[in-house]
Amino acid sequence: MGPIVLLTDFGSRDWFAGVLKGVIAGIAPKAQVIDLNHGIPPGDVRAGAFNLWAARDYFPKGSIFVAVVDPGVGSARKGLLVRAHGRFFIGPDNGLLSWATSGDPRRAVRALENPRFRLASVSSSFHGRDVFAPAAAHLAKGAEPAGFGPSLRSIVELPPIASRRAGRSLVGEVIYLDTFGNAVTSLSAADVAALGHAPAYAQSGARKFPFKRFYAEAAPGKPLSLMGSCGLLELSRNGDAAKLRLGDRVELA
Amino acid sequence: MGPIVLLTDFGSRDWFAGVLKGVIAGIAPKAQVIDLNHGIPPGDVRAGAFNLWAARDYFPKGSIFVAVVDPGVGSARKGLLVRAHGRFFIGPDNGLLSWATSGDPRRAVRALENPRFRLASVSSSFHGRDVFAPAAAHLAKGAEPAGFGPSLRSIVELPPIASRRAGRSLVGEVIYLDTFGNAVTSLSAADVAALGHAPAYAQSGARKFPFKRFYAEAAPGKPLSLMGSCGLLELSRNGDAAKLRLGDRVELA
Amino acid sequence: MGPIVLLTDFGSRDWFAGVLKGVIAGIAPKAQVIDLNHGIPPGDVRAGAFNLWAARDYFPKGSIFVAVVDPGVGSARKGLLVRAHGRFFIGPDNGLLSWATSGDPRRAVRALENPRFRLASVSSSFHGRDVFAPAAAHLAKGAEPAGFGPSLRSIVELPPIASRRAGRSLVGEVIYLDTFGNAVTSLSAADVAALGHAPAYAQSGARKFPFKRFYAEAAPGKPLSLMGSCGLLELSRNGDAAKLRLGDRVELA
Repeated sequence: MGPIVLLTDFGSRDWFAGVLKGVIAGIAPKAQVIDLNHGIPPGDVRAGAFNLWAARDYFPKGSIFVAVVDPGVGSARKGLLVRAHGRFFIGPDNGLLSWATSGDPRRAVRALENPRFRLASVSSSFHGRDVFAPAAAHLAKGAEPAGFGPSLRSIVELPPIASRRAGRSLVGEVIYLDTFGNAVTSLSAADVAALGHAPAYAQSGARKFPFKRFYAEAAPGKPLSLMGSCGLLELSRNGDAAKLRLGDRVELA
Repeated sequence: MGPIVLLTDFGSRDWFAGVLKGVIAGIAPKAQVIDLNHGIPPGDVRAGAFNLWAARDYFPKGSIFVAVVDPGVGSARKGLLVRAHGRFFIGPDNGLLSWATSGDPRRAVRALENPRFRLASVSSSFHGRDVFAPAAAHLAKGAEPAGFGPSLRSIVELPPIASRRAGRSLVGEVIYLDTFGNAVTSLSAADVAALGHAPAYAQSGARKFPFKRFYAEAAPGKPLSLMGSCGLLELSRNGDAAKLRLGDRVELA
Repeated sequence: MGPIVLLTDFGSRDWFAGVLKGVIAGIAPKAQVIDLNHGIPPGDVRAGAFNLWAARDYFPKGSIFVAVVDPGVGSARKGLLVRAHGRFFIGPDNGLLSWATSGDPRRAVRALENPRFRLASVSSSFHGRDVFAPAAAHLAKGAEPAGFGPSLRSIVELPPIASRRAGRSLVGEVIYLDTFGNAVTSLSAADVAALGHAPAYAQSGARKFPFKRFYAEAAPGKPLSLMGSCGLLELSRNGDAAKLRLGDRVELA
């Protein structure tokens, strides 16, 4: 079994992320636990989903991701255990797990209902601690996925990451802003290759981002675009933020 | 022996939290180390004490907590090794360990005085690295608590977390603000149960926070109160901060 | 082999720091991984270099530091594997590794060129994931340094941390500001001892910082200087920031 990998919007000021690890240590003392990050903006399910998707393939097969961005905690929304792409994903059914688990025809989903795999007392505001971390620890110890709860045929899905053709151009949008201010777009390497010619620049509104191979190929502070490290076109400035916003239209000609 | 659990106000920009782990790896290479968090506001002993208290029971028996919020470092204030509630607590004697270790009639305290369990050179401004982390590592390796220094009969105590009755009402205060802006109060589940009736709302000044079971039961942005995940009443807004301050009076009728 | 120790400017909002650990877990599942920190200001090579230098001796011999503050990623700048002071240092050749690895006459440097010790696909913007973390994992698994690439005779060096005498005074500058606002200077304990008398205060511009043994020896909010925990003079205020800037001249008389 691979490591347990934690992704949350719990921040760094409180005990929330830490107690997930305490709960896991109590149930599965030998499990390896890795923090993916705990800095997702509060309640930002899309940012969490993107992080999971971008990180997935860099963790070994058998890894157990626990993702908690969960504004609906305590309501009727389900808890999920999803197997996809050779890895496990545990978290709320609000779209958070959808990008990382889509594209695998053998994706299998269970609802987290078995009280054996929860803490004895379950709060209404902290299922990360009471439901999701315990589920991951029991899975890491060898519990069978089928024992966690009934099989589900579908989960809440976010709209897919996609671009569209418009004549000779490719059109997409900014879907993620990273800590450096790089603007990740929905234009994939495959989309760009299908254009059939090397693009000269990406455009957002009136601003042009010349296509480069690496950041330092642009002068300091100057705009550029490049094929980013997660296989999507990124708009950036060398040593500075792209100064774009989520949802901004991006066109590649 | 359980994991070593670190809680500090060292932040995330410097080497301070990291070298605690380096020192432990040098003394007890097989010890498991868990970050509770390093984001306590600088010097905020009460916030640190609350984090320890809220996290304690979710870590296995035998866990060794190292807590460092230590504005008096280098002065005459003592360093402590406390055994309570089946766990160990190491840190400065400034109240930081008091909430997590109170309530256990068998609480046992040692002053950290034995130079064998410190680094060879002890600075006057970084006892986390030079005194507290080494103590935890030696304890994890099997050193006996009695060897760390003389027994102490008392430690510095913060005022207890408590509420009081005022006629039919229960009165307390905001004692912690978390990263989401939730305001944790000093009103416990037992206090509320002893009211003898289900409360309709909590009140702070003129503002009313209707009592709910979970966040999403309130409309987006609307105030609510609920029994929080650490067994204390919390005031909140669905998807937003409570907009209260530490020390604000809270009444439940 | 000691732990793998990570230091980056990747922040806490994205998957960047987490996937380093995923990549390592995939190659060397038993390697111990420690976060030194991921909060170096973006692109601040000097701050990263100082963190490595200040932390080095508190990690056991055999530790493998992976440092990534890398604005030149994807350009012609080399990747390095340096052995010095009984430890290993992996990162870009931009000065980041220079302070931590200088002063060892047996320092040995290799360029990271062997594709066997990289991921199969190397991006132009994330060598932490694709080059540096895999190199550390292979080294931890027992790969010989000589196999990583050709030996190099020099690396990019930052100007050394140093002070100078000016008559009876010692003159240096602020070289690091920590999260508490303490201003670390380039004046070492050895420099101060060589003065031949106990200093009364440090001075920066018109401001005097009386020399103390610990923070709380000054009144709350009042300035002080002390010999800091990394062996350099620090200017501070008790419970407050020093209110100095990087590069500010500091004189000790």
